[in-house]
Amino acid sequence: GTLDAAVRRVDNGSLGSMTSQVSGANSTSKLILRGIEDLGGGLSAGFYLDSTIGADTGAAGGLQFWDRRSTVSLASVKLGELRLGRDWVPTHLVWSAFDPFSTLGVASANTFRSLTASRALGQAFGSAPETQAANPTLRVSNAVEYFLPPGLGGFYGMLIVTQGENGTTAAGFTDGDGFRLGWTGRGVHAAAAQFTTRNASGGQRFRDQAFGVSYEFSGNRVGIAQRRWLFGSDRTVSTQVGALIAVGAGQIKLTYVHADQTGATAALSANDARLLGAGYVYNLSKRTALYVHAARVDNRGAAVFTIPGGPAVSASPSAANYFGGKKSTAFESGIRHDF
Amino acid sequence: GTLDAAVRRVDNGSLGSMTSQVSGANSTSKLILRGIEDLGGGLSAGFYLDSTIGADTGAAGGLQFWDRRSTVSLASVKLGELRLGRDWVPTHLVWSAFDPFSTLGVASANTFRSLTASRALGQAFGSAPETQAANPTLRVSNAVEYFLPPGLGGFYGMLIVTQGENGTTAAGFTDGDGFRLGWTGRGVHAAAAQFTTRNASGGQRFRDQAFGVSYEFSGNRVGIAQRRWLFGSDRTVSTQVGALIAVGAGQIKLTYVHADQTGATAALSANDARLLGAGYVYNLSKRTALYVHAARVDNRGAAVFTIPGGPAVSASPSAANYFGGKKSTAFESGIRHDF
Amino acid sequence: GTLDAAVRRVDNGSLGSMTSQVSGANSTSKLILRGIEDLGGGLSAGFYLDSTIGADTGAAGGLQFWDRRSTVSLASVKLGELRLGRDWVPTHLVWSAFDPFSTLGVASANTFRSLTASRALGQAFGSAPETQAANPTLRVSNAVEYFLPPGLGGFYGMLIVTQGENGTTAAGFTDGDGFRLGWTGRGVHAAAAQFTTRNASGGQRFRDQAFGVSYEFSGNRVGIAQRRWLFGSDRTVSTQVGALIAVGAGQIKLTYVHADQTGATAALSANDARLLGAGYVYNLSKRTALYVHAARVDNRGAAVFTIPGGPAVSASPSAANYFGGKKSTAFESGIRHDF
Repeated sequence: GTLDAAVRRVDNGSLGSMTSQVSGANSTSKLILRGIEDLGGGLSAGFYLDSTIGADTGAAGGLQFWDRRSTVSLASVKLGELRLGRDWVPTHLVWSAFDPFSTLGVASANTFRSLTASRALGQAFGSAPETQAANPTLRVSNAVEYFLPPGLGGFYGMLIVTQGENGTTAAGFTDGDGFRLGWTGRGVHAAAAQFTTRNASGGQRFRDQAFGVSYEFSGNRVGIAQRRWLFGSDRTVSTQVGALIAVGAGQIKLTYVHADQTGATAALSANDARLLGAGYVYNLSKRTALYVHAARVDNRGAAVFTIPGGPAVSASPSAANYFGGKKSTAFESGIRHDF
Repeated sequence: GTLDAAVRRVDNGSLGSMTSQVSGANSTSKLILRGIEDLGGGLSAGFYLDSTIGADTGAAGGLQFWDRRSTVSLASVKLGELRLGRDWVPTHLVWSAFDPFSTLGVASANTFRSLTASRALGQAFGSAPETQAANPTLRVSNAVEYFLPPGLGGFYGMLIVTQGENGTTAAGFTDGDGFRLGWTGRGVHAAAAQFTTRNASGGQRFRDQAFGVSYEFSGNRVGIAQRRWLFGSDRTVSTQVGALIAVGAGQIKLTYVHADQTGATAALSANDARLLGAGYVYNLSKRTALYVHAARVDNRGAAVFTIPGGPAVSASPSAANYFGGKKSTAFESGIRHDF
Repeated sequence: GTLDAAVRRVDNGSLGSMTSQVSGANSTSKLILRGIEDLGGGLSAGFYLDSTIGADTGAAGGLQFWDRRSTVSLASVKLGELRLGRDWVPTHLVWSAFDPFSTLGVASANTFRSLTASRALGQAFGSAPETQAANPTLRVSNAVEYFLPPGLGGFYGMLIVTQGENGTTAAGFTDGDGFRLGWTGRGVHAAAAQFTTRNASGGQRFRDQAFGVSYEFSGNRVGIAQRRWLFGSDRTVSTQVGALIAVGAGQIKLTYVHADQTGATAALSANDARLLGAGYVYNLSKRTALYVHAARVDNRGAAVFTIPGGPAVSASPSAANYFGGKKSTAFESGIRHDF
């Protein structure tokens, strides 16, 4: 597992600033239990349980205790792996893999994964706090997955089908399917994924797509990736360019993310935003690191994206704390310890 | 512990069918922490913590995290064991021991343990989801138990007293007492148990009784058992006949359960039901197995028992999805992995 | 970790008595995960996760799963330790260290830590069950702590600052700071601590202070301590005198606590109370013990302190179960097992 805690300061311009303690800004604080049993003949069985820890408050899990993953698998080196349970959606795995910040902390490429500020997400899943936790852009329950075996010349891939169980995606019961396909070799990593939800709001279809490519050389990495959320006439398309630069025992991280929203009206299509982020991670050992991250979110039109942890903002133009088109700036410094 | 996930399809006749993913159809998905300390002189101390895992969703526990068991014990090889905490009720342990399906999955002998469909249970404990989890026909909190020592010529037995703490059974505070007594030898296993609740609805007494006998030969087992729920003029009496047949590395399971309800009126007494179930478990190792189970529930009168995981049904004759007297058919296939 | 369960009987005089099962009367039932990584050069990193177990019901945690502690640290033998996360408040650590009963069980010096009966606590934090769990007189979230290094001639000490995050103390977001300072040597232990909350009810300041001194000789210990809760014109000042006497493989514990309340009126200032407690702990091994505790709380004026686990009482003079000025007597016997 991991415990990672940091002190964060977020400045929301004229709305003031706030200092808080946050968990998992470099690597998610979590408790993992897992194991593999060798069944002989290239067959193996495995289990994986993973629970988020709120290092700052002691909270565990989200809507469920083993919120990050709970799976049981049967794997063959020749035929691939069959896996059942709750797991990550393939689009998040691609998106996260190319983000130098792994979608964590103030400079996370998931800063635009906001049900209140991304219209495509909000229209598809509503905006209650529960839907923020349950919508299938991060993880999904009731999954049946198939993974290709290793040794396919650098190619990897998987298919996923999830049962809706006559519920709603907002309740965590997503009727969906998707895939992930990638290739690694000669320092290059390229991957694409899609996950389609058939029971989003109004029984409509929500499409989530991600793809990216990166190149590694002498311990450095540069990459570019895109994530597309499509629901009816609404789209939120985020494009991310990032770099990891090895510096002695540490690493410099740089990111730029642009969120392009398109909707039924010109006003909705003007609600774009961009994020600039930089960080430095100093490794005390393989298990322990100190880090500093800084980031700025710059809204266009009436967009209200913020870096979490600042003073409360509103998307309503008549509210005193209306945030449309404003800037959010943040800094955080913390300790990450794997155990 | 164990992780066990399966895909289940339940067909509720004219109400349609549903596919879902379920946890623990062969063996409950769970996390167990336990240990024993040898104190010398035949004395030992022990602890046991057991938490349900929802392999399909990542949920943990029920109303409480360590919902399956949380006990501390002092044991003597001569005098027996004193145990305090939350534990299984003795009647469930007898009922479960004789069911080839261990009261799990589509063919579970606990399919008739329904607060909405068993009138004796519903009258005694109400029908809210919380009472389904808290009523003392499975486990009970605040227990003081005494277990006979080993080496009594095959006899085993225990007494249990639980504190009501001025609460209600629906809140998990059961004012009850009971016992379990059994004998094993020459392939025969016979057992009986009772647990009486003194603070069921209206402060009335609810009696829960179970007994059974089985015979084992060449790895096969046949058995018969009965469970009786008695509350005022209402009774639900379930009789189960089952067989386990060894087949190579696997096992065939067969079960027939008949639920006989008796009430104040002839109509209430006509609400019987029966379950037919069959399954095959293929062991990949001692820890890992693949399995398929099939079952059918056949209601009589206005009985509304169903196999969980199908389309929603109603006990109200005026509802569009009224299920009185109908059939529920189910199939499931999954992986069980112990860790 | 620890599992500790006991049977308790509390007699609230004319209101009758009640028997219950309780958890953690000798040592809190808990699950601990922790570790330290040696980083070389006197540096180390560590993590600590601690979750309360309700041995009687199987419940885990409080408002959060890792309710007792969740911290990550970086420590230097020369410079001291920096620690982030959820941790104990320094005042509780001092108060608990001098109580022979470690603030647990019927004779706990925290019997007077009641939001309904201590006016200073009730005025500062309200009296909802959530505030009983969240108020910062036991533990606090979002803490940044600094601990002095070892080897300072018996002196130890720490500073703590906690982030309010624009919340309320009742929600667990305490805007506070404090310190602890102590000295041990020649059998003497002296310590003092303070924790000030700046966002108690009405945005007012709540001060929590503790100090004590003890003397150890031939395995016995005597001590005296005081805890002061100050909010506006209301004060609850508890003074505790205690002794631990070694007797063979066991220990006798004696305690006397006097709670002196001061308020805006003479009536409020008359609501004092005192507690007399005695216990015997018999160690079966280093890890396992049997114990018996007895205690009596004696209220003055309209004070309504009780020993938890008895019949419900009221602070309202017109209620049938009004408890003002009455006595609560209790006895408990249990098993404690460390694992």
